[in-house]
Amino acid sequence: MSNLHLWDLETINQMDQRYRAQFINSLPGFKTPFLLGTQNQSGHTNLSIISSVTHLGSHPPLMSFIMRPNSVPRHSIENIKETGVFTLNAVPADRFKDAHQTSARYERDVSEFDACGFTALYEKDFAAPFVSESSLQIGLSLAQINHLDINGCDMVIGKIEIIKVPFNIVGADGSLKLEQLDLCSVTGLDSYHSHVKIGRLSYAKPDKKPSLID
Amino acid sequence: MSNLHLWDLETINQMDQRYRAQFINSLPGFKTPFLLGTQNQSGHTNLSIISSVTHLGSHPPLMSFIMRPNSVPRHSIENIKETGVFTLNAVPADRFKDAHQTSARYERDVSEFDACGFTALYEKDFAAPFVSESSLQIGLSLAQINHLDINGCDMVIGKIEIIKVPFNIVGADGSLKLEQLDLCSVTGLDSYHSHVKIGRLSYAKPDKKPSLID
Repeated sequence: MSNLHLWDLETINQMDQRYRAQFINSLPGFKTPFLLGTQNQSGHTNLSIISSVTHLGSHPPLMSFIMRPNSVPRHSIENIKETGVFTLNAVPADRFKDAHQTSARYERDVSEFDACGFTALYEKDFAAPFVSESSLQIGLSLAQINHLDINGCDMVIGKIEIIKVPFNIVGADGSLKLEQLDLCSVTGLDSYHSHVKIGRLSYAKPDKKPSLID
Repeated sequence: MSNLHLWDLETINQMDQRYRAQFINSLPGFKTPFLLGTQNQSGHTNLSIISSVTHLGSHPPLMSFIMRPNSVPRHSIENIKETGVFTLNAVPADRFKDAHQTSARYERDVSEFDACGFTALYEKDFAAPFVSESSLQIGLSLAQINHLDINGCDMVIGKIEIIKVPFNIVGADGSLKLEQLDLCSVTGLDSYHSHVKIGRLSYAKPDKKPSLID
């Protein structure tokens, strides 16, 4: 690409703070927003949209997300520490506005489930609320929180305890046909997108070009 | 959703290893694949597709990715430690097969740039190769590597030194109109997707519904 503009660190550091936040947050590209469901020991629920969910490993099954210092989901972290569990619920495309609205700085006594029109759903022996409207619901127990001294973020690592998806999207080899779920993705802080499948590729080997398998 | 099937941890642990890897890797949803560009001190280049790139912060501008133990990009990590720098290059949708092919276990003396048909591009005073064919190129210096004892992964944190994107996709507020770049996303290990913009939403406030701003 010859038509690219180059920004160096000095230029980045001189950007206005909000402009830089929009710019740098856009760089990781398309991410999947999840609704982080928690509650405190009294059963007061909390729901917050996050977009840094990452696969860490399959055995044990681990996922992580990043919590910025002073970010909106701070109540969620307190709840996770209290109960030891949380849920991650993929955002249905037709509810993206309500999901985005959970990022507003509601007062502590407000549940974003009520304020934003989502329904809390519980599973046996699991003290965090799932989002009933989501077609991809994951229940996790807190494994550890790694504090990153470099900028004050916390990396929250959870062990997957419960997975809920429609049975018919599970392929013969275990892969999920997520394009059948009508989820959305987010870029930057606030731009939402839907998806069109291009294709699934065979396992890459040095002596062979990958081919479409689905 | 009432049509969801539930898998608990016991069931997950009993899955066949490859089936479980496909299943659990699918859970984070849509991710943006990046080509990780590195070289050793002798200038031998390496290119590897990764899909765990995450925004960590904007000031300083930090991004991270996860390196699994014994994963294909292990040469990349050695190069990053040697030179202190690496590049992340978003995958153009029309090159998704070539990008996927960089995940093959090539011998050490093979450069995936050559084997998979990508062009190395250099910027002044920066000892890691960019991918010329990418419309979103990021150059980073190694900030730190956090080893995760919980499963042997490494979290590689880089500080952004160089950003290259077309000037005309930068919005007035600093956000990038990534839908104009024809990037792709990946789900699981091998399913690729393109995108259709739904809309951009206003900053969420408790007393007001979010509205479309773009």
